[in-house]
Amino acid sequence: MNEKGISKFRIDLKPTQILVLGFLFLIIVGAILLNLPIATNDGNSIGFIDALFTSTSAVCVTGLVVVNTLEYWSMFGKIVIIILIQIGGLGFMTFATTFFIIMGRKIRLKERLIIQEALNQYSLSGMVRLTKNVLLGTLLIEGIGAVLLSIRFVPKDGAYGIFKAIFHSISAFCNAGFDIVGDSSLSPFIGDIIINITIMLLIILGGLGFTVWIDILRVLKQKFENKWNLKSTFRKFTLHTKIVLVLTFSLIVIGFVFFFILETTNPDTLGNLSMKNKILGSLFQAVTPRTAGFNTMPLADMTHGSKFMTIILMFIGGSPAGTAGGVKTVTMGVIILTVISGIRGKERTEAFERTIPEDIIKRALAVITIGITVVITVTMILSVTETGSFMDILFESVSAFATVGLTLGLTGSLTTIGKIVICITMFIGRLGPLTMAVALSMRARSKASMKKPDEKVMVG
Amino acid sequence: MNEKGISKFRIDLKPTQILVLGFLFLIIVGAILLNLPIATNDGNSIGFIDALFTSTSAVCVTGLVVVNTLEYWSMFGKIVIIILIQIGGLGFMTFATTFFIIMGRKIRLKERLIIQEALNQYSLSGMVRLTKNVLLGTLLIEGIGAVLLSIRFVPKDGAYGIFKAIFHSISAFCNAGFDIVGDSSLSPFIGDIIINITIMLLIILGGLGFTVWIDILRVLKQKFENKWNLKSTFRKFTLHTKIVLVLTFSLIVIGFVFFFILETTNPDTLGNLSMKNKILGSLFQAVTPRTAGFNTMPLADMTHGSKFMTIILMFIGGSPAGTAGGVKTVTMGVIILTVISGIRGKERTEAFERTIPEDIIKRALAVITIGITVVITVTMILSVTETGSFMDILFESVSAFATVGLTLGLTGSLTTIGKIVICITMFIGRLGPLTMAVALSMRARSKASMKKPDEKVMVG
Ligand SMILES: [K+]
Ligand SMILES: [K+]
Repeated sequence: MNEKGISKFRIDLKPTQILVLGFLFLIIVGAILLNLPIATNDGNSIGFIDALFTSTSAVCVTGLVVVNTLEYWSMFGKIVIIILIQIGGLGFMTFATTFFIIMGRKIRLKERLIIQEALNQYSLSGMVRLTKNVLLGTLLIEGIGAVLLSIRFVPKDGAYGIFKAIFHSISAFCNAGFDIVGDSSLSPFIGDIIINITIMLLIILGGLGFTVWIDILRVLKQKFENKWNLKSTFRKFTLHTKIVLVLTFSLIVIGFVFFFILETTNPDTLGNLSMKNKILGSLFQAVTPRTAGFNTMPLADMTHGSKFMTIILMFIGGSPAGTAGGVKTVTMGVIILTVISGIRGKERTEAFERTIPEDIIKRALAVITIGITVVITVTMILSVTETGSFMDILFESVSAFATVGLTLGLTGSLTTIGKIVICITMFIGRLGPLTMAVALSMRARSKASMKKPDEKVMVG
Repeated sequence: MNEKGISKFRIDLKPTQILVLGFLFLIIVGAILLNLPIATNDGNSIGFIDALFTSTSAVCVTGLVVVNTLEYWSMFGKIVIIILIQIGGLGFMTFATTFFIIMGRKIRLKERLIIQEALNQYSLSGMVRLTKNVLLGTLLIEGIGAVLLSIRFVPKDGAYGIFKAIFHSISAFCNAGFDIVGDSSLSPFIGDIIINITIMLLIILGGLGFTVWIDILRVLKQKFENKWNLKSTFRKFTLHTKIVLVLTFSLIVIGFVFFFILETTNPDTLGNLSMKNKILGSLFQAVTPRTAGFNTMPLADMTHGSKFMTIILMFIGGSPAGTAGGVKTVTMGVIILTVISGIRGKERTEAFERTIPEDIIKRALAVITIGITVVITVTMILSVTETGSFMDILFESVSAFATVGLTLGLTGSLTTIGKIVICITMFIGRLGPLTMAVALSMRARSKASMKKPDEKVMVG
């Protein structure tokens, strides 16, 4: 195996395969590091299965944990976890590009293609620029988030509070859901406005996707010169941005109203709280399933209805090309629009005066069908291997697939088979819809004739 | 309101509206009859909500019951129920046609259109002939079924055994799931080969759909002269028949293997039975969720995995234009084929050397999306109004939507709101996918260019 042989091997791999192998490599490196005795507080190795589980959960920005992150892991362990989250959240390939840029190496077409796949982008041009912008934007937002969180953490913990603020800022922005607060996620902060608002904004921004940020910035830059007007500003957005913004907003509102109504009289969750905290708690519970994984309410004590709503929100997830998981808002949007167009007797799927191309619809269908199939299969396997109610098992399966990280308590009692199944599910959940979308985006599109102009949206 | 006024009123209604109103009228007539004191054994009226529930369950061939059919209803009540099942199973419009034929009235185009909608057919020609054949076929099969069931029932119950045989033959063929055996469906017959085989064949034949029978008869007639050969016979079938047969067979085999493996060691279900009875029990449990509603195993004692598999089989249901409910085998088949074609990079959905038209794919997508939406909504409402585990509630919702009639025990304890919700769900489940398919089949199809020849299949 000389340099040339390795190089040849690389060239023969398809970009999607490189992406999959990259994530796999990162997970294994993470598992090896977390398996070291210095990674834990008691100085004993956690054992490979649990190290693998934690590494997968971090790289796939899921947040399901078999041990209490605060108490179990040493400072070294915590730093490994947050680095895995940051790399996993931004995507292996964005990082590889950054590496190439830093090394001053010229980006070849082949590598550009890989980055394109990693970001699920549809134009080759400006890829490097995009990657730079994404990195800068990420650091900027995470930085602001960390400063805001410091207001709460530094007075209490001093210098360690800064680490805590950075950790939670990264974890929230990457929709990772890991926390170093205690054993009940962010529950101690259910009524804390600064923590709630900061974390929610980080989650939402991370979940919107890079392309949406860039589109919003583009429109804002144009608008800077002209008079401000919400309606005409919205009209300037790409179809993708419009669908993402409408669905993100709608899902948060629906979730908020739903959780508020169902939990406001539940003494185990919001029943005994003040109105302010009820509103804050419901809002947070509406934001976190998509797909942050923090919680301020005790999830296992929620009503059946709220648990089921959480499952649905988790499955939908965030938006494409961001840090969120799930089948994605746009995917769901395309399916809903297609069904509505069908019922109205329209031959094409239309949204905001645009037609959504047929191949995008089929891609959306594929992503959702495969998503449902994965969830059903995993639920079926866990039904056999694990003890726990059906709700607990379904919740855990969807949480892993959509890389959410919320649990009704099953994670702690998983069997070894269960842990391996959840690991694979998190991996499929993080890479599956993405690579699906990539593989399917290579398809030839049917020719358009006599219809409104096409505009692409991303799904999956 | 003179004769002319009523006639004008009729003409202004769309065919689908007539279908919906027809079913509604039948349900209300049934509810009024079942509300009479003579309908019950104790001579007291059951009360309107429960009469309405039973009538809806019978007309929509569901089989969910709030009272024990055998013990609660008088002979009059039982006859009303079985007539409602027969009319509901064959479809209101088939019956209307028959009525017209019997009255010697000429069938006008308008009425032909209604029958076409009721049967979800795609050709106007031969509609009357079809209806006649469907009725004759139904009577023939139900007659043979009743004779076979009499072998078991008559020695035990004498003349009443004949009624019992007819009742269960109709109930099985119409996929209705009502029984007059006792309070645990067909559990007493778990090891009875005659009952099991007869009921299973009736369920499967009823669930295949009229068009498949007619296609099979057509091919068999052609084949009568030539040499018999399974492969070349299969090739002569329409695409619709091929998909129905392959999926029906596959789902039964998958279900059988699944239930056998999961329940063979479960002491509460198959654990203590002989190998013959284990096989018979598993096979019956694979057939009944699609969408017969009888059971020989105690459902509530099954493992989580088996309950979940039952939910999936119930949701898929039987085949179009038959007595079965659910989203239908072909609908699921079209979606799976589309996803597979997409993954393989094919631009069109192909099956058995044919292309499935785009509008059929969208119709399938609409039926399944609406189906999932209904199930989610109903589950959500029942989660709030009923007490019971999430599994019980989800199972009940899918059972009502797919007009299956299996229950884990929730039906008996439903609140009034719960009963009304289940009534509406059964009604939507019976008419929704059908009328959806009808409404969408009116859509213009996009022009085909440079592809394999189109062939229609029915979905929903
Ligand atoms: K997460
Ligand atoms: K039924």
